[in-house]
Amino acid sequence: MKPFIVMDILKKARKLEGVVHLEIGEPDLPPSKNVKNALLKAVNEEKFYYTEAKGLEILREKIANHYKIFYDVNIKPDNIIITTGTSTAFLIAFYFAKKIATPTPGYPCYENFAELEKKEFIKIKTEFPDYKLSLKSLKGDFDTLMISSPNNPTGSVYNEKELKEICEFCEKNEILLISDELYHGLVYTDDYTTALKYNKNAIVINGFSKFFCMPGLRIGWMIVPDNLVREAEIIAQNILISAPTLSQYAALEAFDYEYLSNVRKEFQKRRDFLYNELKDIFPIAKPEGAFYLWCDISKYSNDSLKFANDLLEKAKVAVTPGVDFGEFKDFIRISYTKNIDELKTGARRIKNFIKNI
Amino acid sequence: MKPFIVMDILKKARKLEGVVHLEIGEPDLPPSKNVKNALLKAVNEEKFYYTEAKGLEILREKIANHYKIFYDVNIKPDNIIITTGTSTAFLIAFYFAKKIATPTPGYPCYENFAELEKKEFIKIKTEFPDYKLSLKSLKGDFDTLMISSPNNPTGSVYNEKELKEICEFCEKNEILLISDELYHGLVYTDDYTTALKYNKNAIVINGFSKFFCMPGLRIGWMIVPDNLVREAEIIAQNILISAPTLSQYAALEAFDYEYLSNVRKEFQKRRDFLYNELKDIFPIAKPEGAFYLWCDISKYSNDSLKFANDLLEKAKVAVTPGVDFGEFKDFIRISYTKNIDELKTGARRIKNFIKNI
Repeated sequence: MKPFIVMDILKKARKLEGVVHLEIGEPDLPPSKNVKNALLKAVNEEKFYYTEAKGLEILREKIANHYKIFYDVNIKPDNIIITTGTSTAFLIAFYFAKKIATPTPGYPCYENFAELEKKEFIKIKTEFPDYKLSLKSLKGDFDTLMISSPNNPTGSVYNEKELKEICEFCEKNEILLISDELYHGLVYTDDYTTALKYNKNAIVINGFSKFFCMPGLRIGWMIVPDNLVREAEIIAQNILISAPTLSQYAALEAFDYEYLSNVRKEFQKRRDFLYNELKDIFPIAKPEGAFYLWCDISKYSNDSLKFANDLLEKAKVAVTPGVDFGEFKDFIRISYTKNIDELKTGARRIKNFIKNI
Repeated sequence: MKPFIVMDILKKARKLEGVVHLEIGEPDLPPSKNVKNALLKAVNEEKFYYTEAKGLEILREKIANHYKIFYDVNIKPDNIIITTGTSTAFLIAFYFAKKIATPTPGYPCYENFAELEKKEFIKIKTEFPDYKLSLKSLKGDFDTLMISSPNNPTGSVYNEKELKEICEFCEKNEILLISDELYHGLVYTDDYTTALKYNKNAIVINGFSKFFCMPGLRIGWMIVPDNLVREAEIIAQNILISAPTLSQYAALEAFDYEYLSNVRKEFQKRRDFLYNELKDIFPIAKPEGAFYLWCDISKYSNDSLKFANDLLEKAKVAVTPGVDFGEFKDFIRISYTKNIDELKTGARRIKNFIKNI
């Protein structure tokens, strides 16, 4: 299994002083104040026990309600399973797959989940500047297509028309669609929606770690079609018992839309700032979502791991090497998960570092 | 994959009024007050971020220290990985196995973890009254032996001599030993220890859900030998990112030995009470650890699922059917995880139910 290199970089970076951390995909903003209050209440009420394996029913109702408000899509709470972050949701979803196709670059853990469950895994290359799958590229004999929009690391977002085409392609060809929607909410266009709008048989995975700013609480969810609910619940009973209970109570108060709209605005401001600062030194596709810039460093290096290590040691900026996402030796991923002042410092250090290469 | 039936029973039982819950393996006692205070502090300090994948170093140091105090065994914090409950620890451990042998009856999820990772899995039958593996029974071509002591559901405990023999057998035959020690602490004899005392290459799995009374916090640990640390860390990076942060801070304060000694005494009292109440109506091997009675119901039924459902519906006592643990149609598992008053009510109801069969 391949290391998730960003976690190694993080470990190394935390041991150094004065580093600007632009490596890990972790929002620096706190969750809504309501979440903190809900946690204090749950601790005081000693909610230290297991919940049912699928998670608290009231939380599943809140999530169903979120789909109505956010996408105008009707979901039954019964089709929702609360998971420990999204990682375990992928483990559950992959159980239903034989051969999984997914665009590359993409989230590196996907391939490792497939490896753990001994599933075949194929990558379909996407290209600068939009990094999106086209229908033409969907050739090959796979039974499962896994997409993520916004994409990590590129920040690309399928618009509603593009998503509809992929959804219909999967329905028509009886391909299981797994849609990773973890960065929904952190999208800087209005033209996007959930895969469930166009494919009732899709498995949708989302969670509270990004938009809702609750990464360390390790809480996510998945929505599964009727015919897979019972089997998915059984796997959850085994690999989760149940998701962390305090985190489930916290999540009940996470849908604070006024606060969340400010979170989105803040990340959009940061994207605009850092993209404008760096776009002339690297080719970068302007991301429409998430909080990453996928930067082509080929002018300076074709060894992204060395580049990232040098940048950390010499310039005190931590970024993720492209090799974390596959064979991308001439890319780095920069997270804009710090405030504008830190991004300013980071951008200045990156520019100085490059000047001295 | 087979359902973890106890979770279904729990779900059904929670919808009924006035049920005595003797089904799930969940201590009813709260954790030490220090744990609650640590949680409140961590929430107030907004510890909502990821930790390193292996978990907080200070927590790994505390756990290493626990091995010194509890077993007089030296463990390096670097060999410890903090996991989300023990479930993910098993997923990590099984990655290193090809063909896993384990005694039956045993924890039902083991087989499902093996199924998820497509590992071969064989069961070695153990028998009344001690339900333990003998060296003679360890025949067959497996590369991994998984033991649990105290055992769930039988409560059997390997004494130090028996454990030493198994440890040496594994070393000699180059078999990976995975030792599930989750119920350590809840042992009503002093003659037991950790597998690490006699097998430095074992993987030991333990957690805070039972003895430490923190089930809903979903926090456990595994200790891996030097040659597997890096690979285990990589899998943890992928499937955990990191264990829930608040739970990690809570666990720092869980080693309150004065409180824990009272937890043990309370469960021992309950074991003595319930065993004496029920031993004349069922054959039961007196358990030396954990908090379960494994009861042979063959005098009354050979359909444990129907028996458990009838007992729930007619007598309002929830228990786990033996079929949850394999082909044990004439057994039920009764948890003594409630106070003596509730156990009294439960025992009375069970006896009345049996009288009317």
